[in-house]
Amino acid sequence: MSTVSSGQHTRPMCYLLLLMILQLGLHTAEGVWPLPQTLISSTERFHLSPQAFYFGYGRQSAAQQGCSVLDAAFKRYFALIFPDYTSGRINAHRLKCVMLVFSGRASLKAVTVWGALRGLESFSQLVYQDDFGSYFVNKTDIKDFPRFQFRGILLDTSRHYLPVQAILKTLDAMAYSKFNVFHWHIVDDPSFPYQSRTFPDLSSKGAFHPMTHIYTQSDVRRVISHARMRGIRVLPEFDSPGHTKSWGKGQPDLLTPCYKGGIPSGTFGPINPALPSTYHFMATLFKEVSVVFPDSYIHLGGDEVDFSCWKSNPYVRAFMQKMGFGSDFTKLEAFYMENIVNITSALNKTSIVWQDVFDYHERIPKDTVLHIWKGTPASYYAELSRMTKAGMRVVLAAPWYINHISYGQDWHNYYTVQPLNFSGTEEQKKLVIGGEVCMWGEYVDATNLTPRLWPRASAAAERLWSDEKQTSNVDMAFPRLQDFRCKLVRRGIQAEPLYVGHCKQEYQGI
Amino acid sequence: MSTVSSGQHTRPMCYLLLLMILQLGLHTAEGVWPLPQTLISSTERFHLSPQAFYFGYGRQSAAQQGCSVLDAAFKRYFALIFPDYTSGRINAHRLKCVMLVFSGRASLKAVTVWGALRGLESFSQLVYQDDFGSYFVNKTDIKDFPRFQFRGILLDTSRHYLPVQAILKTLDAMAYSKFNVFHWHIVDDPSFPYQSRTFPDLSSKGAFHPMTHIYTQSDVRRVISHARMRGIRVLPEFDSPGHTKSWGKGQPDLLTPCYKGGIPSGTFGPINPALPSTYHFMATLFKEVSVVFPDSYIHLGGDEVDFSCWKSNPYVRAFMQKMGFGSDFTKLEAFYMENIVNITSALNKTSIVWQDVFDYHERIPKDTVLHIWKGTPASYYAELSRMTKAGMRVVLAAPWYINHISYGQDWHNYYTVQPLNFSGTEEQKKLVIGGEVCMWGEYVDATNLTPRLWPRASAAAERLWSDEKQTSNVDMAFPRLQDFRCKLVRRGIQAEPLYVGHCKQEYQGI
Repeated sequence: MSTVSSGQHTRPMCYLLLLMILQLGLHTAEGVWPLPQTLISSTERFHLSPQAFYFGYGRQSAAQQGCSVLDAAFKRYFALIFPDYTSGRINAHRLKCVMLVFSGRASLKAVTVWGALRGLESFSQLVYQDDFGSYFVNKTDIKDFPRFQFRGILLDTSRHYLPVQAILKTLDAMAYSKFNVFHWHIVDDPSFPYQSRTFPDLSSKGAFHPMTHIYTQSDVRRVISHARMRGIRVLPEFDSPGHTKSWGKGQPDLLTPCYKGGIPSGTFGPINPALPSTYHFMATLFKEVSVVFPDSYIHLGGDEVDFSCWKSNPYVRAFMQKMGFGSDFTKLEAFYMENIVNITSALNKTSIVWQDVFDYHERIPKDTVLHIWKGTPASYYAELSRMTKAGMRVVLAAPWYINHISYGQDWHNYYTVQPLNFSGTEEQKKLVIGGEVCMWGEYVDATNLTPRLWPRASAAAERLWSDEKQTSNVDMAFPRLQDFRCKLVRRGIQAEPLYVGHCKQEYQGI
Repeated sequence: MSTVSSGQHTRPMCYLLLLMILQLGLHTAEGVWPLPQTLISSTERFHLSPQAFYFGYGRQSAAQQGCSVLDAAFKRYFALIFPDYTSGRINAHRLKCVMLVFSGRASLKAVTVWGALRGLESFSQLVYQDDFGSYFVNKTDIKDFPRFQFRGILLDTSRHYLPVQAILKTLDAMAYSKFNVFHWHIVDDPSFPYQSRTFPDLSSKGAFHPMTHIYTQSDVRRVISHARMRGIRVLPEFDSPGHTKSWGKGQPDLLTPCYKGGIPSGTFGPINPALPSTYHFMATLFKEVSVVFPDSYIHLGGDEVDFSCWKSNPYVRAFMQKMGFGSDFTKLEAFYMENIVNITSALNKTSIVWQDVFDYHERIPKDTVLHIWKGTPASYYAELSRMTKAGMRVVLAAPWYINHISYGQDWHNYYTVQPLNFSGTEEQKKLVIGGEVCMWGEYVDATNLTPRLWPRASAAAERLWSDEKQTSNVDMAFPRLQDFRCKLVRRGIQAEPLYVGHCKQEYQGI
């Protein structure tokens, strides 16, 4: 029956049993998106009875009942596989039958619980219903592991506030496409919705609304827990020194006062790198953030710093002289970023920064991860070469700015990216740890997030998970992605259509 | 208080009273979208009590209680104006107070019930809540009428099936922007979802699914009734002779068999204009359609006819010779369209056809309305000149193909259209009866329809309703449209954001 292996090591931490009623029959197997590394399927099919089906732990499995991640996943995937059966229709009598009626089983071996989650997702996609509503799975053997370890989606909750519910729903859909990093670009110029314990004024004065447009500590915990249960890490970004206008509302003397004609103009620029108080504030904030967000990575931003305000400010210029930076403001920027990276290093976090930090300042700790967001293929290939040559690890986002929309089947653009097609050694290529789909928020909020993201992001998901040679043809991918999109719709994800056609079950949540 | 006049005639058919608690205060009035012809507002504001507020008919009004359209509108607009008050929180005690507590009133005069509906919409947009949840309206005087009588939205239910609920929700939103024509492009090449009484095979064989992806007679009645209650006409389109692939599945011998190498190739082209059975079928179908859709207009399509299949068919060529058309297939097309127009004329319907019919065949009944869908401003201005010079009435759709999306604030393109900026006499300009926003369905279904349509279509709505001189500036329109978009979101319409920012009440229906 269905065997799903995740991870490349040998000792399975999880050995799960998927029990089902067995009944022979013939049917073409439906696909799995993103495409597994190896999938051998046959037309021999097995009947699954919702009354009899259950997930269980194998005897040899290191994980057993009480493993909260898998216990919860069993419940979730049962409901996803048998949607007709889970809307209050289970009764006691049926539940009693569970252990009695079965004559077939499928097994899933994985080195980690996270691999087991991916395997459950693949298995759930293999189950289909015939026209009479009966559930089937074809005899299938899958061996699988991801091509890249970092498969992220960025949501921007500063340009528009996204209700927690919209984030949770996105996490659900991410798991269906096997994304494993939620990059939370939580604050930026327009608003500061993160409610800090240490600095509550940041959100009470910097959010769009101090009560309705914020993420409380409990909201953040909910997001992290929801993500974790689905094998998704939450990578918070507190972008500085630019992109911080909203910070200034709740934290006096943090931003640089801009000058015009020798006097302060009343406007503010990036964070003021010339004041010791700045670093004290940042250390205190990041101390809190590093506890609230337990992931070992933290994103420090560092992109698009506009020097004009720094240049205008006499105190900043005096500081430059004192530090021996002359009039090279990239040195000032580098000085600032170095301090911030040191703060987070001391907190045992690995930093991720946007490419600007590398572009302007190659002297950067070796374990920092660089994030490419700029340009055309030609320019990001050059950047990939340079960064990996310097021995740095890289995440590629540039080709997946999915907030940019255009008419027609633009998922092709996201699918045909070749992340390793730059000139460099095999060692260099290994330093590309993955890619990220960015949904910047200028034109996106909860009203249009989901149809803009899905299934377009799923095209990138296959690029980041699957073997490149097996997935080089968009025309072959098209019917599979169409089928996967209907699966998303059936699971309640408002995923938009790829082209003319229909799903058996259309979106009803209107 | 608030006076809303609709229509330019004198004897008011509807004279409504809007009763409210009066309390003086100062506040800037919120806007009305689309902009009324005359709006004089003051900072003097009145407190509205949901307990005391009611809509009533004036004594002089020709319409009185029992007028179903207005009785229903009163209920609907009460709920829209007081959303907090209508989620089951009304109790008997409060209802008893209705007649007792009031000390102010607003009046609305309109020549027709439809005008009264528009006035209620304007009034509802004037009411706002302060931070404590109290309702207010500023003293306002409005005189209003639409610039164009035809303000349409096309939905395409053939390329993707739209559940009835999605259509009803679109009708709700249309009324908020004062659209008054729902152009239902109900069938086309990909599917035939209209369930015909006379020819049930058309949908049972031509729909995406014979049971789940169809519009039953009762569905159609529901759509028409929902539209009528909101002052919206339903204009059905049964496009022929092209765009009919799906028709062929349920109606043998209707489509032209294409030939290759002297024998039928197995594929089919447009409807076969050479067979008498074709016209018999079309007459029977349109007889049914003209009863099911009571509107006096019917859309006959006539666009994009591909001649290659007709050319390949020896019987069609023989018919051409017999009719003296030579090898001019536009004559055959004209012959076909003339027959169809005659069929619908005999059914007392006014025909609307796409511009192709005029382009290839100027000899067309004078009362036919022409529908421009092609090209750039230069080309549609030329077409407007030519058509109106020929004395034909025109609806302009070309600049409002809203299915075409691009990144950024593309509503500007829909807002800055100048429909009468073509060369022609005043008499010619009067022949432009309106415009239409087209949402073609290649890439659109219920998952993304609403955020693609709103508020982008609202930009076109203001162009079609309001005075051009008063609405010539996109920058002035921007904050008003942003405010209107938040009103749509508050009313449960998944209208996407225009740019960075927030609404007091964000979309929650996730």
